[in-house]
This record gives sequence, C-alpha cells and structure tokens, in this order.
Amino acid sequence: MKKIIVIGGGAAGAKAASKAKRLNPDNLIELYTNEDIIAFSLCGLPYYIEGSVSDVNKLIVRTPEDFKKNGINVFTNHTLEKIIPEENCVIINNNHIFYDQLILALGAKVHIPKIKNIKANNVYTLRSIASGVEIRNKMLKSKKVLIIGGGYISIELTEAFIKNGLEVVIIEKNEHLASDFDYDFADRIHKIIMEKSGQNCQILYSTQVVEFKKDENNNFISAITDKNEEIEADFVVLSTGAYPNVAIAASAGIHLGLSGAIKVDNRMRTNFNHIFAVGDCAEKYCKITRQADYIGLGTIANKEGRVAAINAVRPDIPESFDGILGSTITRFFDYTISKTGLSYKKAEQLSNIIDLEPIEATVLKSDRASYMPNASEFAIKLTADKRSGEILGGQAIGKIGTVAQRINTITSILQSRQTIEDILHLDLPYAPPFSGSIDPILTAAYKLKELSKK
Amino acid sequence: MKKIIVIGGGAAGAKAASKAKRLNPDNLIELYTNEDIIAFSLCGLPYYIEGSVSDVNKLIVRTPEDFKKNGINVFTNHTLEKIIPEENCVIINNNHIFYDQLILALGAKVHIPKIKNIKANNVYTLRSIASGVEIRNKMLKSKKVLIIGGGYISIELTEAFIKNGLEVVIIEKNEHLASDFDYDFADRIHKIIMEKSGQNCQILYSTQVVEFKKDENNNFISAITDKNEEIEADFVVLSTGAYPNVAIAASAGIHLGLSGAIKVDNRMRTNFNHIFAVGDCAEKYCKITRQADYIGLGTIANKEGRVAAINAVRPDIPESFDGILGSTITRFFDYTISKTGLSYKKAEQLSNIIDLEPIEATVLKSDRASYMPNASEFAIKLTADKRSGEILGGQAIGKIGTVAQRINTITSILQSRQTIEDILHLDLPYAPPFSGSIDPILTAAYKLKELSKK
Repeated sequence: MKKIIVIGGGAAGAKAASKAKRLNPDNLIELYTNEDIIAFSLCGLPYYIEGSVSDVNKLIVRTPEDFKKNGINVFTNHTLEKIIPEENCVIINNNHIFYDQLILALGAKVHIPKIKNIKANNVYTLRSIASGVEIRNKMLKSKKVLIIGGGYISIELTEAFIKNGLEVVIIEKNEHLASDFDYDFADRIHKIIMEKSGQNCQILYSTQVVEFKKDENNNFISAITDKNEEIEADFVVLSTGAYPNVAIAASAGIHLGLSGAIKVDNRMRTNFNHIFAVGDCAEKYCKITRQADYIGLGTIANKEGRVAAINAVRPDIPESFDGILGSTITRFFDYTISKTGLSYKKAEQLSNIIDLEPIEATVLKSDRASYMPNASEFAIKLTADKRSGEILGGQAIGKIGTVAQRINTITSILQSRQTIEDILHLDLPYAPPFSGSIDPILTAAYKLKELSKK
Repeated sequence: MKKIIVIGGGAAGAKAASKAKRLNPDNLIELYTNEDIIAFSLCGLPYYIEGSVSDVNKLIVRTPEDFKKNGINVFTNHTLEKIIPEENCVIINNNHIFYDQLILALGAKVHIPKIKNIKANNVYTLRSIASGVEIRNKMLKSKKVLIIGGGYISIELTEAFIKNGLEVVIIEKNEHLASDFDYDFADRIHKIIMEKSGQNCQILYSTQVVEFKKDENNNFISAITDKNEEIEADFVVLSTGAYPNVAIAASAGIHLGLSGAIKVDNRMRTNFNHIFAVGDCAEKYCKITRQADYIGLGTIANKEGRVAAINAVRPDIPESFDGILGSTITRFFDYTISKTGLSYKKAEQLSNIIDLEPIEATVLKSDRASYMPNASEFAIKLTADKRSGEILGGQAIGKIGTVAQRINTITSILQSRQTIEDILHLDLPYAPPFSGSIDPILTAAYKLKELSKK
C-alpha cells in the first residue's frame, strides 16, 4: 500500500486522485484543498452567470462525498504551508503529513493589476463557484459593468452581461483583444462583439485603469484611466489573466521553468523523486515550437492529472505527456472563435530564435454550399513554415459548428507535423450542409503552396 | 498551344477544364458533354426537392456561357462515340476531333435493378437537374413514395419527402441501411429515421422488388416484393447506387481496374499517354488499405480534376493525388451521420487479405459539457489495428456540429497514419458549448489502448 497525497481540487487534482485510486484500489489517497468545493467546471461559470445553466451546483462534477464513496479522502479548507521533499513530508494546517508520492495541483492565481483602491467592494475576479454566484447576483441588480482585460473570459462574460441587459465597457491595455490571435483576426472578434452587442458594448484599447474611485463605504464608483477618462459602472470584473501558484513549491527547492511554472518532464515529474506537478501550476511544453510554454486550461489539466497518477502509481507502465498545441475555443452568441498552434505573429517572433520562415493564408468562404439556407461566410487562416512546409497553426471565426470542425481538424494536422503537401488532398467528408465541395482548409493549403514557391 | 479535350461536364470535368485554362491561358480547351447543363451540384438536389433551396438554378455553379467567358469552349448535347488513342482522336457526334491531351470525366450511370416493368412512368432516378425538378413536381402532387435502396441519397430524400408531408416506404435488400457503417451504427441510423419520421416512414429490410404493376397508360401502380407483398405508392425513386461509365473507354483499350472503373496512376493517367481519367469513371486508391477502391463523390472528383489538369498542362511540375480515405457525411433533420476510413466490419473482411487485427471502441457521450442547455448524447466509434495501433476509421452519429467536428478530425488522423498512442493526448480545443473536457475521440482512444493490451 502506498500513500499518495494530492494537493489541489481543480481539474488536475481531482483527475489525479481518481485515476490513482482506480489504478490500485489498495492505495491510500488523500486530497487536500484550501477551498470548500472540489472538481467543479471553472469554464462553465460564464454560462451560469448568463443564466443558461440554471443551478450552479450543476457545475460540480463530483462532491467530496462522491470522492469519499470511491475511497478517496478529501480534506477541504486545508491549506498547504510547506513542502519538505527530503523527508517526503508536507505541512498542512500545521500538521506534518508523510507521503510516498506527492502530486501538486496547486492551480493558478488571478493576476491583480496595480490599480489604486483595487480592494474596493464590487470588484470581482472569476475563479470559484462563490465568485460566480456573487457576480451573477450583482449583475441581476446592475445596469453597467466594467471588464478589465480582453481575453476569452472577458468575451464570454460580455455575452452573459449583454444577454442580461447590461451595458458593458471593456478596457484592454493592448491595441487588440485576444492576444493569441493575429491582429486581423482580433479585428474580426471586435466586429462580431460590436455586431451582437449593438450599442451596449464599448471597448477601450491601449488603455489602463490607474485608480478606482470609491465611496465612504468602500464601494466602487468609477475607474480612472491612464488617459484621465472616468468610467462609472455598478461593478467591475478583473479578467486580467492568471499566473501559476508556485511560491510554496519554489521555496521548497522545486525547480521552476522559464515560464515561471513548475518545471516537469514528460511524466509530469519535478526535480524531486516522488513529487509530480500538474495543471495550472505546471509548465507546459509546446509540441510545435519545442519550447517551454504556459497556458492554464482544464482539458490539459485533466490529461496531466491522468498521466501523473499513472506514473506515480504504476512506474512499471510509464505514461508520457507529449505536450500541447495551444488550442482554444470560445463561443460568442452564435459565433465560434478558435485557434490552435502558432499565429503568424507568434511564428514571426519565434523566427528570431528558431529557424522558421512563416507564411500565412486566409480564406473567406461560405460555411456550407453557398446555395444552402443560412449559409454564412467564415474566416480561416493557416500558418506554415515556408521551408519545411510544416503547418504551424490555424485560426477561425464563424458561426457555431463550422469553426470547431476546422480547428479540431487542424489540431491533428499539427499533432503529426503534417506539411502543406500532406493536406492538399485531405479527404474531408463533404455534403452541402457542412461545407463547399472544396473545404476551406484545402483552399488555404493551395494558397500556402503557391506562397511557398515564391 | 496545346489542345486539351475534356469529356464530361460534372464536377471533375468542369474543374479539369477550368484549371487547365488557368494554368496556361494559351491552351485551347474544349469541353464536351452529352447533357445540356454542366457544373451543377448533384449533392444539392435533395435540398432543392425538400424546398430549402428555392431555385434549382442555384445549383448550377457555372453555366456554359460562364465557361465561354473564360475562354473554354463548351459543347453541350455532344455525345462521345469512340476514342482512338493511337491517333489522339475522339469521335463525337460523328466528327473526328484531335487532341494533345484528353481528360475523361465520363461520370457514373445509375444502377438499374432487375425489376419487371422498371420503365413504367413515375419511376425516377436522381442524376440530373431535370430529374430533380421532375421528382419535386411529382412529390408536390403525391401522398406516398417508394424509395428503393437505403444509402445516403435515400436518407436525404426521406427527409425531403417527410418534410413535405409524404408517407415514405424504403425497401432495402440488405439487413441494414447504409452499408458503409457497422451494423450497430446502421441501427442508430434506423432509430433516428424512426424518431424523426414518426409514423410516416416504413423500412423493409432483406426485401427486393421483383415487379412493378402498372396501368394501361404505363403508370406505376404498385411494387411486388420477393415476399409477395404489394406496396402502392404515387411514385418510385431508385436509389440503388451507380457504376462507372466506362464502356466506350474500355472498348478503346483503356484499362479498367479491379473495381471496374478506369485504372489510373497517382497523376490520374490511364495506360495511354495523353489520356487521363477523373471523377466517377476513375478508380480510386484507398490510403488505408492500399488497395483499389470505388466511390463516386463530388469532392474527390474536384481534386482529381485539378490534379489531371496540372499533369496534362504542366508535366514539368507534376502533381500527385495520393488517394482517398472513404469519408462521407449526410444530414438527417438535426442529426449528422458521418464516417471516414474503415468500419470494423470492413476491417474484419480485409483481415482475410491483409495483415490486420481490428479492434473497436464506441463512446456515447454528451456533445457538450453535460450541464449546458441542449446537451445531447452522440455516438462515436473508432476502429484500430491492434498490432500497429494505427487508427483505421471512425463513425459518428449525433446532432449537427458535433459529428463533423469529430469525423473531420479523424480524417487527418488517418491521413498521417497516427496510432492510438499518438492521439491519446491530442490537444483538441475545449469549451463547454463544444465538448466535455475530455473529447470523446480521446475517450475512444483510451478504450482502444486498454483493448490493445489484451
């Protein structure tokens, strides 16, 4: 019998604990979290706030009781204080607890921007069930919201707030939203936000908030920008990204990678025997660039939790996690926004470090045979390396269905490092409700082929 | 200047002619067809019959006049009578016409089953714009239709007829519909037809029609089956497959392959210099089995037309067509039915010939996060080879969006011959409206991995 301790109850920790138990029911599994809820879907919160998920408890995949039924001991509201790798020991709520294997699923922390009076009331971040409930309750009593940051969560919350009749102001410090996309695609995202929000959404670019004004009860009144604009709102959501929660790990001598997250190998092992790191606290490896990377996503956390559990419990059948592609997707009303791999911009930046000569091809095409009802144009971009012909990434924006169909396909093109030539005749299924007879991925590949000859 | 003759005005011929002209505008391009319309979308006809495409002319991608504007001479109602490869000559409408390069896009012919009085009035096949218009007009005056055959066109027409208030009887000679699918998936197709058609569709399996009864004006009255049942209907649609139109080519000494279609190499060349064959008259090469195959699909025709044109016009920059995967898709009301590669059944058959040990994994899963509104279960199956781990095919049935997203992804997995191990951690993008946090493709891969250990 081994004792396996998992710290953290997010997607990675919950998966690691469950998998470790399933692999060997004799193992003693203890999961510690400083929160009171585990295994909930963070990604589902915008849909709860919107109102399309009626009960926030639906987002809880499994309760601590469910885990206990499966023989996993869950300790909520328990805080990790110290890791002593040399003694195979952690200190939690002042108690020394010894382990055979330790899986760290410490998650991420919200990046709090430097704004005067940031701790005013009615300033929210979205990281927990409780914060989701607070934001929804506040929204229901409000007319206007200020969102700071312009990433996916910001876009998802904008939909939720617009659907609930609020006026939305987004403040983005960069010149474009959605920094993972090329500027032309960020412009498309801007356009669909404007199309769907009508007069109810305003986006201020290249702008930073420097101060929150508040009343005598510490309640937020307005935001003052670096351009000396004052923006009143009923409440604020900070959607300014997150960073890996690594302080305790680092102070125990666990190595961090270039990204600032915990450095792990392909089996999710840290530099200490018997200590694994998974999910948002762990560094990622990008398969395309072959470099360290960082992104916090539930789907990756899940895979890493599974792999770490196998390697912790069954080192005799080691499992390897081969890395990420950088695939993301979100919905905005009836639109889908998705990407995988490298944008042209990112590939250009990388060409200073590694040997890349990026080319790109954008195709605007009907999402089904043009004679079909409800046909609508969508945009897809492929990036490739001119010399090797390797496909490096894809971006797409269009109506629901269309986009996931293409970006998911491109992920498996990237996975196997296929080239322009490899995909030129890809035998995608065709029928008029699903595409034109030449899929836009192929049209983009034809264009790339022409470009690669120049 | 070269003279390039294209015979046939379907997808393959139209594409070949256009591409040949674009590659070198100095070429003289002549396209001959025995029909009066070219370059129309055969696949769009069911949606015209249904009424969702309002004007049948929308299905015409380009008219002969459009081609003429681009410098391509189109001769409609011109019938190929003979090919004399030794003289680089064809006889069309009694005239000898000489060519530098000949591209045969002769298409397919409807397979007419052996039924007594098959030539009765009100018995239709769907191969042309005119037949689509006739069927729609007849449907609008009718209450009941008999469809013989249970493939995709039959399924698409069933939707069209049900939506227009008709009663439908499908007669299928095999025990299951949709022979490209495994029986369990064919059963799912049966179920969704029943679900959507209510009492208005009846499917008779293992049944063949032996005779049509007709009245004194040669009008169809009823069908008599091999079980001596009599089925009355207002009209009949034969949806009994098609076979390559090769008689004239074969009599000229052009080699046919094992499939009965014209044998071509990877540049779409026949056994004669200067003669290419493309589209539904040409044999296919299946990339998975590495064997000759036959399937008539517009999307493949398009690719082959393009490749033949390049090789005919610019042999200095040869282009290769690397074959097909056998990907198909269709819609039935709000369901999508799709497959790519080999079914388990097909892989089992092949295991008698080539070294395959097929395994399969079916996953039933919500098409989005289960807490999202309108979540619905869909079914996906992956087949793989136990020894090599190579993924051999996929089948899926579910609501619109869901299915194309997965099967398109599997095509590119097949294209690069990825294994179970390769796709175990495929970084598909995730958000609650598009999938659960573990995509069903990955769940199927996990299952296959377990099976491959046994």
